[in-house]
Amino acid sequence: MNRQQLINLIRSKKSFLCIGLDSDIEKIPAFLKNSEDPVFEFNRRIIDATIKYAVAYKPNLAFYESRGIEGLKSLQKTMDYLENFRDECFTIADAKRGDIGNTSSQYARAFFDKPVSGFDFDAVTVAPYMGEDSVSPFLGFKGKWIVLLALTSNKGASDFQLIEDKTNELLFAKVLKTSKNWGSSENMMYVVGATRAEMLAEIRKIVPDHFLLVPGVGAQGGSLHEVARYGLSKDCGLLVNASRSIIFASNGADFELKAAAEAKSMQEEMSEILSGIGI
Amino acid sequence: MNRQQLINLIRSKKSFLCIGLDSDIEKIPAFLKNSEDPVFEFNRRIIDATIKYAVAYKPNLAFYESRGIEGLKSLQKTMDYLENFRDECFTIADAKRGDIGNTSSQYARAFFDKPVSGFDFDAVTVAPYMGEDSVSPFLGFKGKWIVLLALTSNKGASDFQLIEDKTNELLFAKVLKTSKNWGSSENMMYVVGATRAEMLAEIRKIVPDHFLLVPGVGAQGGSLHEVARYGLSKDCGLLVNASRSIIFASNGADFELKAAAEAKSMQEEMSEILSGIGI
Repeated sequence: MNRQQLINLIRSKKSFLCIGLDSDIEKIPAFLKNSEDPVFEFNRRIIDATIKYAVAYKPNLAFYESRGIEGLKSLQKTMDYLENFRDECFTIADAKRGDIGNTSSQYARAFFDKPVSGFDFDAVTVAPYMGEDSVSPFLGFKGKWIVLLALTSNKGASDFQLIEDKTNELLFAKVLKTSKNWGSSENMMYVVGATRAEMLAEIRKIVPDHFLLVPGVGAQGGSLHEVARYGLSKDCGLLVNASRSIIFASNGADFELKAAAEAKSMQEEMSEILSGIGI
Repeated sequence: MNRQQLINLIRSKKSFLCIGLDSDIEKIPAFLKNSEDPVFEFNRRIIDATIKYAVAYKPNLAFYESRGIEGLKSLQKTMDYLENFRDECFTIADAKRGDIGNTSSQYARAFFDKPVSGFDFDAVTVAPYMGEDSVSPFLGFKGKWIVLLALTSNKGASDFQLIEDKTNELLFAKVLKTSKNWGSSENMMYVVGATRAEMLAEIRKIVPDHFLLVPGVGAQGGSLHEVARYGLSKDCGLLVNASRSIIFASNGADFELKAAAEAKSMQEEMSEILSGIGI
């Protein structure tokens, strides 16, 4: 899915909601555990319940890898199911990969090269520590995106991301300035945590047009209105992610209804925000 | 495997060689491609041919993930096979993971928690960008290790790892100083590329006792003697990795012989180096 298609999707659904499929098998409703593949069954039902309200889904690889081969099968089935909604949602592999060039090329194939790996995500999250040649192999896939970590939502973000260099530039700002020339706003997004919304204004000065993937609203405590206030661009330019607050809104028989209600409530807030900028 | 066991292994094999199982299916000998699982068959033969000379094996996850579920099966069989050599080698999942706390916990299970994931590596490589709470969940597994990226062997290392802060400290040095207190030399190692051997002296001042995993000797051009000169500690403290230069020394019927010869040649150099410090 390209940038214009994503913007069209946001306009048509009046939403910039991304739902994180952090589908921990220990937290899904007990009655699903008799299914052939409980995690896939959970994901399928969550997708059906929320597809009207969400423009993106973001499986978090860790929750699948932790179950080894069985977990990867659940992920494969989930992505195959999402093929049915090819034009209705953007897909992000939240994998935080990054390695030397020949290795990053292999990771890119893992997420983008369906004939080889079975997976055909629109985007993958990438860590910047190893620099340009660890990132650029992902950008060689036409129509695919990377989402580079800039300023994350967790406490540990302050350990290194906020280090100031000699010119008073913070590391995350240096990452933005250096990396934005590796690709363009057509194939790169950035992760910026909602828990640091006030820094979005600074970030928008550096990358006015790039989409930002914003985790941290919901269970981590970030505010949607603060994120929108500082982070919106003229094309929206935001994908705000919620995971646990939607998918685990209930662990009972009503889990789909509760997930749908949470997603709808966020979509309604987003619709209001978007109408404020004429979208 | 704990630190003392690893040191004993280095003493008994007179080697600190780690072999990277970057087992690209497109590069393995053609005659193996009729096997039921060509990559596993390749790995099994490489292990058998080199186990006398190597103290560690490091499967590079990207080369397995790029083949999706089939790739993960090859990795699973490889690790199950390495169980036969439990006391004869240390195992490292080269995965460069790292995410917020609840997610890193899941990655730790993916590599360390065999009953859940099927995998039981001794160590996993971790990226530092997201800070302490992205790293510490891996340290909660008794007897397991992380290998944190400090100064990598690739060109892009200079994009961010060499940024100087206001006190003239380079980012990789800050990563070392900050992170060494998250664990100890009993459960943390660092990645330091052989292509920057001269910086090892500086690194040894910060982490005199930690093991360093050193990639970049071989195909990437680093020198074993330079690495040893600046990087050896009193307990050796080095695992020097070679991947392509050993496993793809030949792609013909003699590939095991050639891999063994390459590994033996490195082990002999290492034996000399170790005898210089009385090991």
